[in-house]
Amino acid sequence: MSELRRDPITGRWNIFNTLEPTGPDGFEREVRQSSQALCPFCAGNERLTPGEIFAVRPPGSQRDGPGWDLRVIPNKFPALRVEGDLNPRGVGLFDLSNGVGAHEVIIETPEHTKQLADCSAEHVTQVLQACRQRVLDLRGDQRLKYSLIFKNFGLTAGASLEHSHSQLIALPVVPRRVLEELTGAQRYLEFRGRCGFCDMLDQELQEQERVVADNASFVAYCPFVSSFPFEVAIVPRVHRWDFAAATPDELADLGRLLREMLRRIRQTLHDPSYNFMILTGPVEAEEPEAYHWRLELVPRLTRVAGFEWGTGFYINPTPPELAAAALRSAALS
Amino acid sequence: MSELRRDPITGRWNIFNTLEPTGPDGFEREVRQSSQALCPFCAGNERLTPGEIFAVRPPGSQRDGPGWDLRVIPNKFPALRVEGDLNPRGVGLFDLSNGVGAHEVIIETPEHTKQLADCSAEHVTQVLQACRQRVLDLRGDQRLKYSLIFKNFGLTAGASLEHSHSQLIALPVVPRRVLEELTGAQRYLEFRGRCGFCDMLDQELQEQERVVADNASFVAYCPFVSSFPFEVAIVPRVHRWDFAAATPDELADLGRLLREMLRRIRQTLHDPSYNFMILTGPVEAEEPEAYHWRLELVPRLTRVAGFEWGTGFYINPTPPELAAAALRSAALS
Repeated sequence: MSELRRDPITGRWNIFNTLEPTGPDGFEREVRQSSQALCPFCAGNERLTPGEIFAVRPPGSQRDGPGWDLRVIPNKFPALRVEGDLNPRGVGLFDLSNGVGAHEVIIETPEHTKQLADCSAEHVTQVLQACRQRVLDLRGDQRLKYSLIFKNFGLTAGASLEHSHSQLIALPVVPRRVLEELTGAQRYLEFRGRCGFCDMLDQELQEQERVVADNASFVAYCPFVSSFPFEVAIVPRVHRWDFAAATPDELADLGRLLREMLRRIRQTLHDPSYNFMILTGPVEAEEPEAYHWRLELVPRLTRVAGFEWGTGFYINPTPPELAAAALRSAALS
Repeated sequence: MSELRRDPITGRWNIFNTLEPTGPDGFEREVRQSSQALCPFCAGNERLTPGEIFAVRPPGSQRDGPGWDLRVIPNKFPALRVEGDLNPRGVGLFDLSNGVGAHEVIIETPEHTKQLADCSAEHVTQVLQACRQRVLDLRGDQRLKYSLIFKNFGLTAGASLEHSHSQLIALPVVPRRVLEELTGAQRYLEFRGRCGFCDMLDQELQEQERVVADNASFVAYCPFVSSFPFEVAIVPRVHRWDFAAATPDELADLGRLLREMLRRIRQTLHDPSYNFMILTGPVEAEEPEAYHWRLELVPRLTRVAGFEWGTGFYINPTPPELAAAALRSAALS
């Protein structure tokens, strides 16, 4: 069982691995470039993973057998587990609780060396549909307050396995980043009577300078206040607060645009490591509609250092105007 | 001139290098392992740096010549510059201003291969005294609201030069991290009538489990809610909100304890990259006394990935109890 602990000054929760903690000699990690015979995510090796929660398979194929296009499994080394009670308690002035939650892996493809950017737009859409399905399903568990979908691609971005996958972590508390954005959006709404994210998108569309690509439902742009070089936001064109409420058409549009942006980033930046996160409104918040969901895509090109940890501000060496121009001019095959 | 831009939803400021931006091919950085002949921070190479702002030198030695123990110089590639006006302005719903501030480098030793952990306790204290001096001096500039002292050691921690140095960045706004901690500390003070940081320190001293070392003025411990494995806080034993108000005796105690902790970390974790930051109360805040200054020391052992960016929560594989026990048992030579 892991443990959640809260800072009494800032209210920030962190997750601690108290079951199998890493000692001082445990940190020399590399991406495991395991061959196909050993990779637990490869077709044919299904026995190496916990039983699947969800899969896209042809009719008649066997659960936890080969033949699938996409599998969702529990993480074998979960940050949080679904079993047990939260049991919130105090230790002096500190708050802690058991690490109840969910940690799942979306194996995006049966092929070991295929990147998400190599998949068809339809396949990327299937991945997004599976994510949506898992988020909706986990909302049935009253203990869980928020599900984050994220992807770590490459060693620098924190990936520990090479085979293409995304992850879902469901938390018993709403993440502070989302709460902070929601609070800011509510304040903006009160002050101006409109959604601040919609207003930002309008301005980006008027100025066009930071817009990279768009389609009927989504716009991909490099935000005016990007924290990282070549950061990209993929934002629903009309106001939508909930990723899980996206329609099939919207997800198909997102799949196309996400694939295009992954290819533009790979081409422009020489196949960098990257993270993406799907940020959505917290269902049980008082006014989740003030939020505007989006996918945030961050190539990992710089190192976060003392200044950033100390301040919470970021030094970005690449203005988003330059980043957007470079991404727009990528020659896509 | 760089540019400061503010996110209209969260209020977060980021700094953009608009003068010499990094393009898509500019990110393959390595620590420059320059030989002594080429290193701008080495004794004898003073001509390669901007003129010194401050130095510890024997009487009679020449400004910007050799013979010094420690030099403070303007950063040759500053994130912010002292020249010019802030000129705050709006572009649609965005706020921006010129990148006015200061960015200085504290060259900690004239010797190219000497780490800060190799310096004597007296020398580490001299470094801290120089930092204090610079922070005090920059308070004379009304445009600057906060000075952060930080150190990046090693490539993983964001260092771009091998020769031992710390940095100071003075900002025209108070960093959000400090504001957030100050707000939390004020709330705690209202609620309980005491400093929350003092209360935490009391509990750490009672429990002893996470305390690594201490002396008359400071305690070094692994915080109960550490974000990172082997994170260490070095905290003044009695309530002090302002690093720059530290007495010579206090700085000598901090110098000794910081040196000891750097050596314990090097020994326990096989010479890892690390960052440290000096977090202090913002002078012009309404109630800066609610803050409790401290030095935060973070070995860089894990990679921040999608989950952390998306949530603002951290997954820490090493509970601080384990980290403190390992650091306590380091065999110091």
